[in-house]
Amino acid sequence: MYRLFILAKCDLGYAEEVGEKVSELEDVSEVYSVTGEYDLLIKVNFDDLQSISDFVQDRLHRVPHLKETQTMMSFRVYGEDIGDFVN
Amino acid sequence: MYRLFILAKCDLGYAEEVGEKVSELEDVSEVYSVTGEYDLLIKVNFDDLQSISDFVQDRLHRVPHLKETQTMMSFRVYGEDIGDFVN
Amino acid sequence: MYRLFILAKCDLGYAEEVGEKVSELEDVSEVYSVTGEYDLLIKVNFDDLQSISDFVQDRLHRVPHLKETQTMMSFRVYGEDIGDFVN
Amino acid sequence: MYRLFILAKCDLGYAEEVGEKVSELEDVSEVYSVTGEYDLLIKVNFDDLQSISDFVQDRLHRVPHLKETQTMMSFRVYGEDIGDFVN
Amino acid sequence: MYRLFILAKCDLGYAEEVGEKVSELEDVSEVYSVTGEYDLLIKVNFDDLQSISDFVQDRLHRVPHLKETQTMMSFRVYGEDIGDFVN
Amino acid sequence: MYRLFILAKCDLGYAEEVGEKVSELEDVSEVYSVTGEYDLLIKVNFDDLQSISDFVQDRLHRVPHLKETQTMMSFRVYGEDIGDFVN
Amino acid sequence: MYRLFILAKCDLGYAEEVGEKVSELEDVSEVYSVTGEYDLLIKVNFDDLQSISDFVQDRLHRVPHLKETQTMMSFRVYGEDIGDFVN
Amino acid sequence: MYRLFILAKCDLGYAEEVGEKVSELEDVSEVYSVTGEYDLLIKVNFDDLQSISDFVQDRLHRVPHLKETQTMMSFRVYGEDIGDFVN
Repeated sequence: MYRLFILAKCDLGYAEEVGEKVSELEDVSEVYSVTGEYDLLIKVNFDDLQSISDFVQDRLHRVPHLKETQTMMSFRVYGEDIGDFVN
Repeated sequence: MYRLFILAKCDLGYAEEVGEKVSELEDVSEVYSVTGEYDLLIKVNFDDLQSISDFVQDRLHRVPHLKETQTMMSFRVYGEDIGDFVN
Repeated sequence: MYRLFILAKCDLGYAEEVGEKVSELEDVSEVYSVTGEYDLLIKVNFDDLQSISDFVQDRLHRVPHLKETQTMMSFRVYGEDIGDFVN
Repeated sequence: MYRLFILAKCDLGYAEEVGEKVSELEDVSEVYSVTGEYDLLIKVNFDDLQSISDFVQDRLHRVPHLKETQTMMSFRVYGEDIGDFVN
Repeated sequence: MYRLFILAKCDLGYAEEVGEKVSELEDVSEVYSVTGEYDLLIKVNFDDLQSISDFVQDRLHRVPHLKETQTMMSFRVYGEDIGDFVN
Repeated sequence: MYRLFILAKCDLGYAEEVGEKVSELEDVSEVYSVTGEYDLLIKVNFDDLQSISDFVQDRLHRVPHLKETQTMMSFRVYGEDIGDFVN
Repeated sequence: MYRLFILAKCDLGYAEEVGEKVSELEDVSEVYSVTGEYDLLIKVNFDDLQSISDFVQDRLHRVPHLKETQTMMSFRVYGEDIGDFVN
Repeated sequence: MYRLFILAKCDLGYAEEVGEKVSELEDVSEVYSVTGEYDLLIKVNFDDLQSISDFVQDRLHRVPHLKETQTMMSFRVYGEDIGDFVN
């Protein structure tokens, strides 16, 4: 399983609406509000690498009031991987 | 429950060792290697806010070969919160 | 008491108007113009953690011509804490 | 009165020691731990502009285990300036 | 031959369209989607330095839905330079 | 004499127009196109500190198609200061 | 084929030595000096995703005098892909 | 004439020493202390592009206690170019 983490900025005043919308997208497993420069931290799970850029381009980036994203691929989990529960 | 996300840079060549060590610290629930400017993304769960800066100062920052950290507090989960399993 | 520091960028030409508006928001104790990448440094005091993300989402981010924010939580004051005077 | 705000990174594990030391420097009025990329937010008051770079070079930058600083000058306070109490 | 590398952000949802358009511009040799803060990495070859800022200003920056760019000049290739093939 | 350096981003395609306009503002002594994240590097000389934030707010930030600025104050010149010629 | 782009900072004075060493590593196809915050831009080709983090951890990060890296995965090439020659 | 602007960080406590040393290097025309993330802003003039990376690698980066640099090439001057005096 591949994991993509996304830090996202939203149009001001829309972080909550964007957070809810993103959490309903297929493959998205967790969405958190965060302090700092970004508004949201999003975790997405993929079985298949080809679908990652489709997800970002065709689904995530079409959520209204999303403003900017920083994407980070993960190739490794450290410690004990407790499977689907930690995704 | 409070969540702290930490992006961490390690001394070059030590990301794997640091990732394993950090994953064994109490309260740490997930540690991932990530692409980009940072080497690791770390998720920590706290019941009690006072213990957050103790964790960062007294436990995380003493892991050898950790070089730099960026911390992000989370106050909200979006979508359905499936409890301990996603935390 | 919890403190939140916010670095804010404004639409160009509006830093003064935004600075005045933000300084009138409840819980905001200090607003400064600053050199660098951001226009304003804002200090907010909270007795209650739950109200922090409400403040950012529901009040600060609705001030017109505010463009982007970076938030920093503070959990500790160093040196002698002279109470309300230093907030 | 001129104000200088300083975001500071410390050698890992030394933020508390540096925070205490910096809070004892003359002209320093407030020192906070902060979340994010930096460890400390420092506020310094000056009556005299010439002494600002002396402060940074000759006093602040000699505190052991301080690693990196970002300085921001402030020329304006917004809202009501309640004098020494907010400084 | 001079090389200019450009990291580009696009309006959300337009990275693919921008990537295709940029790849058709004269002097552009390679365009890649990338993870991270930027959407595209672009490589441009010039025989003549004067034409670099013309390229950026007059051609690249007029591609619709391009949002922001970071430019990096290259003066040296390391290792064996296999000529036009690696540009 | 006080010096303010400003790194500026412009709306895409407008760096040349903004560069020309900014170079005609009073107190501006030099304007350069630059590679990197910003489009322009601007140098401004002041005899009087109070006028710096007026310059940024009331004159610079009203130049059309200027998008974002990062300001840096300078308090010291190193080496031999050859007076107005280098200012 | 997967491509990884790496922006690298070197210990000051060692960019040339590091550039030469990195260009000799297996899978590395191109290494350029660049202006800006980083010293080198490195392009690496992989047939197999599993070997990417091995490359970064076990080979790249062991090159002496390499100081810091920012990694960017690429999943797509825009325009005509002229095969091994541009890869 | 080509111009290179360099933002430089120094080892803490050494900005003044580095500033003086850099100002004595051949081709360096101006060195300023600056507020913000960097300590110094350096301006260098070249008649010949080939010598730019030699300058950075072989002379600038060997100044003791210089820690990190960000380089920006300039290809254009806006407004009236008053020749050597502004260079």
